[in-house]
Amino acid sequence: MEKKDFKLEFPNSEKTYINGKIYPDIKVAMRKVKLTPTVTEEDGVRTVVENDPIYVYDTSGPFSDPQVEVDCRKGLPSLRGAWVEERGGIERLSDFTSEYGRARNRDKSLDAVRFPAIPLPLRAKEGSHITQMYYAKKGIITKEMEYVAIRENMNCEALGIPTHITPEFVRDEIAAGRAVLPANINHPEAEPMIIGRGFMVKINTNIGNSSTSSDIESEVEKAVWSCRWGGDTLMDLSTGDNIHETREWIVRNCPVPVGTVPIYQALEKVNGRVEDLNWEIYRDTLIEQCEQGVDYFTIHCGIRLHNVHLADTRLCGIVSRGGSIMSKWCLIHKKENFLYEHFDDICDILAQYDVAVSLGDGLRPGSIHDANDAAQFAELDTMGELVQRAWERNVQAFIEGPGHVPMHKIRENMERQIEKCHNAPFYTLGPLVTDVAPGYDHITSAIGAAQIGWLGTAMLCYVTPKEHLGLPDREDVRNGVIAYKIAAHAADIAKGHPGAMVRDNALSKARYEFRWKDQFNLSFDPERALEYYKIGRHDNGEYCTMCGPHFCAMKLSHDVRKCDK
Amino acid sequence: MEKKDFKLEFPNSEKTYINGKIYPDIKVAMRKVKLTPTVTEEDGVRTVVENDPIYVYDTSGPFSDPQVEVDCRKGLPSLRGAWVEERGGIERLSDFTSEYGRARNRDKSLDAVRFPAIPLPLRAKEGSHITQMYYAKKGIITKEMEYVAIRENMNCEALGIPTHITPEFVRDEIAAGRAVLPANINHPEAEPMIIGRGFMVKINTNIGNSSTSSDIESEVEKAVWSCRWGGDTLMDLSTGDNIHETREWIVRNCPVPVGTVPIYQALEKVNGRVEDLNWEIYRDTLIEQCEQGVDYFTIHCGIRLHNVHLADTRLCGIVSRGGSIMSKWCLIHKKENFLYEHFDDICDILAQYDVAVSLGDGLRPGSIHDANDAAQFAELDTMGELVQRAWERNVQAFIEGPGHVPMHKIRENMERQIEKCHNAPFYTLGPLVTDVAPGYDHITSAIGAAQIGWLGTAMLCYVTPKEHLGLPDREDVRNGVIAYKIAAHAADIAKGHPGAMVRDNALSKARYEFRWKDQFNLSFDPERALEYYKIGRHDNGEYCTMCGPHFCAMKLSHDVRKCDK
Repeated sequence: MEKKDFKLEFPNSEKTYINGKIYPDIKVAMRKVKLTPTVTEEDGVRTVVENDPIYVYDTSGPFSDPQVEVDCRKGLPSLRGAWVEERGGIERLSDFTSEYGRARNRDKSLDAVRFPAIPLPLRAKEGSHITQMYYAKKGIITKEMEYVAIRENMNCEALGIPTHITPEFVRDEIAAGRAVLPANINHPEAEPMIIGRGFMVKINTNIGNSSTSSDIESEVEKAVWSCRWGGDTLMDLSTGDNIHETREWIVRNCPVPVGTVPIYQALEKVNGRVEDLNWEIYRDTLIEQCEQGVDYFTIHCGIRLHNVHLADTRLCGIVSRGGSIMSKWCLIHKKENFLYEHFDDICDILAQYDVAVSLGDGLRPGSIHDANDAAQFAELDTMGELVQRAWERNVQAFIEGPGHVPMHKIRENMERQIEKCHNAPFYTLGPLVTDVAPGYDHITSAIGAAQIGWLGTAMLCYVTPKEHLGLPDREDVRNGVIAYKIAAHAADIAKGHPGAMVRDNALSKARYEFRWKDQFNLSFDPERALEYYKIGRHDNGEYCTMCGPHFCAMKLSHDVRKCDK
Repeated sequence: MEKKDFKLEFPNSEKTYINGKIYPDIKVAMRKVKLTPTVTEEDGVRTVVENDPIYVYDTSGPFSDPQVEVDCRKGLPSLRGAWVEERGGIERLSDFTSEYGRARNRDKSLDAVRFPAIPLPLRAKEGSHITQMYYAKKGIITKEMEYVAIRENMNCEALGIPTHITPEFVRDEIAAGRAVLPANINHPEAEPMIIGRGFMVKINTNIGNSSTSSDIESEVEKAVWSCRWGGDTLMDLSTGDNIHETREWIVRNCPVPVGTVPIYQALEKVNGRVEDLNWEIYRDTLIEQCEQGVDYFTIHCGIRLHNVHLADTRLCGIVSRGGSIMSKWCLIHKKENFLYEHFDDICDILAQYDVAVSLGDGLRPGSIHDANDAAQFAELDTMGELVQRAWERNVQAFIEGPGHVPMHKIRENMERQIEKCHNAPFYTLGPLVTDVAPGYDHITSAIGAAQIGWLGTAMLCYVTPKEHLGLPDREDVRNGVIAYKIAAHAADIAKGHPGAMVRDNALSKARYEFRWKDQFNLSFDPERALEYYKIGRHDNGEYCTMCGPHFCAMKLSHDVRKCDK
């Protein structure tokens, strides 16, 4: 890959950092949007009143910091490396544990596609516990915990907004399993973030190649691009060639936690023959990815041999890739799912790196007809059992959810998940509230996502307009992320997240005062807003093509206020 | 304008008509989507099972009927002309009543822009009652009522789905004021449709030029285009030149009910000087538009002099154009709103043509900060008083609602409207659930629209991606309509509208069986789905670029079913 810097800029914005109070050396990144003053003129007197800047949650990492020189061939700076080191209990290995990983790293034919400076992996020392959940249970507030507490409260201190989100609260939520702070010790480049019902609703973006398309450079570009628009975590769902190398590039350049579905790579290793999958191959794949720095794994351990048949009466069968792979494996071998059987072994591996487990919903409904059925809920029960086993081993865990669910069945999903899974965070794909709009499924699913987010879902997996039709390109990623930022933000407002409405209010004030640029700069996508605005040829700043000069309600409304006096 | 036929076609679809039972001469238009058979192969035996066609609600009128030759210069055929005539109580006038209308029709300089074959207007005879509400109260089922009963039940008879929507139910809902069947006797080209909580959620599209842009031909094209994608009614919000002539072209070529906001034209008549507006000019404008065939008017009669000040503390003041005009008028003259004062006179005019009144929410909130405030709810109380006065005069009426409302405040809007407005249908603009996404407000508002539709809102006014930024073009209209079709359909499913899920289930079955073309043809936008699908280069029909051959969950799911045997 050529040197790429992927510099990300937002208009009239400044990268700023807020220092910790418990840990003054931590610097929490934010984007400060500077606003123009409000200018009024009455009876010939011009009044200028400054507008305070607004802070917005910033997932773009060092890419948007002009002070940091980023070179994709070197990867991002290590933000958390020293934090991990100073807590101790870890060791740097002299080589990778995974046989497959070692072989890939030594294969000369891969030199051209390999990331140039692969770091040696860290692992917990024998007998040491190093997960955020372990520290939380011990009553320890880590630097990561204070970081997310500050990050969640962006405008609260400046505006005097009361907030319940303290470092202690973060710690207690993690200790109780109600929140997850994904933080593989081998991904120190990622900025800490938190997934839980008591926090801002997060969004995940999926990228990744398939055997029919895409190359490493364009995947890295999509990863950076998704962070620019606001993706909170990133799943690399690659199933094509060079999965191992693609992942290394992505992890090293990704400022947000990275998730994967390890069964995809395991299946590639057995040339797509489901029947040849086994625990040993899977285990080696897990370790390989733990040591690369993946922050969370989707693991379809909730599929049980005796439940697979429950999907037989469905309209759309099994639509989770991992779920269909494991179901097929169970039926071919007439054996229990090895991921279920080896769940404790899996957790023991994950605990060594502080990788979180995302309990995959292999039996999620793939049509609204199949929503909330016996297959789906049987799996949820199993996940509720497994999540407690993860917690016993101090492994952070969350639960994946549907899929396709009509609006009147959304609430049951959330309430049942909370009950059966003991308050573990819920992470849903949409849900899509109707099946009839391929090409617009970012919208069908944003409708469901906003509702389930409001009800308590902690993270929403985005859906792009290409869902059901093909792999997303850059523009699809942008459209998917913005649709989900909208859903998540609407949920934050409805939940009453501290200060969630600050940005809305600032934008609306700018709109009412015809401060067009401030309106755009405060929006989720300033470029698009400006682009649409420019299409209408404007004579001046006091109205747009929508209404023309006589019919601008806001202009008239100003007149009304003047009349009133 | 050149001869334009605007032929609208949908792939693998056939225009069909279902005859009435009470009135065998009525022919209810529908679109039949023909499906390909399901083909399976097992142990070398090929099985072919036919799939029944699916009927979809069709708002495209004669434009999609290859048997009908449409020429925009002649207008659409008169569907309801004979129905209106045979019920009697009407007379055809020898000239237009409105002075302004007569002058426009005689102005030689407008020959080039005037619709060539303007019909003379119909009006109720002195002392006669001719509204759908009047007939309903008398226990009469009109042809329009049977038409909508059949239209609402598309797939029910063929599939044996029980439905509560009978012609009697339609009649009773109209009689009680719970539903509106907009049907100006001067717009016989429109196909009957119904707006009410007990029916499918409808969507309205706004078009219209402003003084800074747009011409007649492109407005007619947008009107037809919006009907193609599924707009149930169409509001012409033109505020530019030649409003009268533009409206004539639109009404004569529009197969769905047309709404307007007469104050816009009244304001143009006084050269944009709000202070010069008066009842006489407004009255003449109402009659002018009634005789052209407008089916419903938004009238901002809920603005009261003593309530205007309630908006003073708002972040965004008054954002309804009509609301801000009337508020300014009230304050300049220190007088009560003349639309409120003359409401009974307005109803007497509307009753003569069966024009419905849409009580405009002049004080709707324009930011989520202002939602559910005193100004908004004071106006709602007034509307509740006025709707009963409309009903006394047999004028059909519905109530307009917000606007910008965060999710947790949506329910209060619906419940309060039902209570204060005595079950009159609610017609909302969105609501947008956040203010921070200009450029994507079709999405921010579809999220709110789906929820309020589910709760009981009868019609949703679409919002396009250009909202707050400029006038929509053709592509924006398409995106706005589809986003709202999604919201309305999701609401129908959640409400349990009879047969609402038939289309979803057929599409999902097609998806699971890799009948790609059926999947596209059943979707809201077959062209877009096909376009996106084609971008990924497919080797065969059994998978797409999303997953490639090894990772297609649906393909694996078929294997699972085979394993199971």
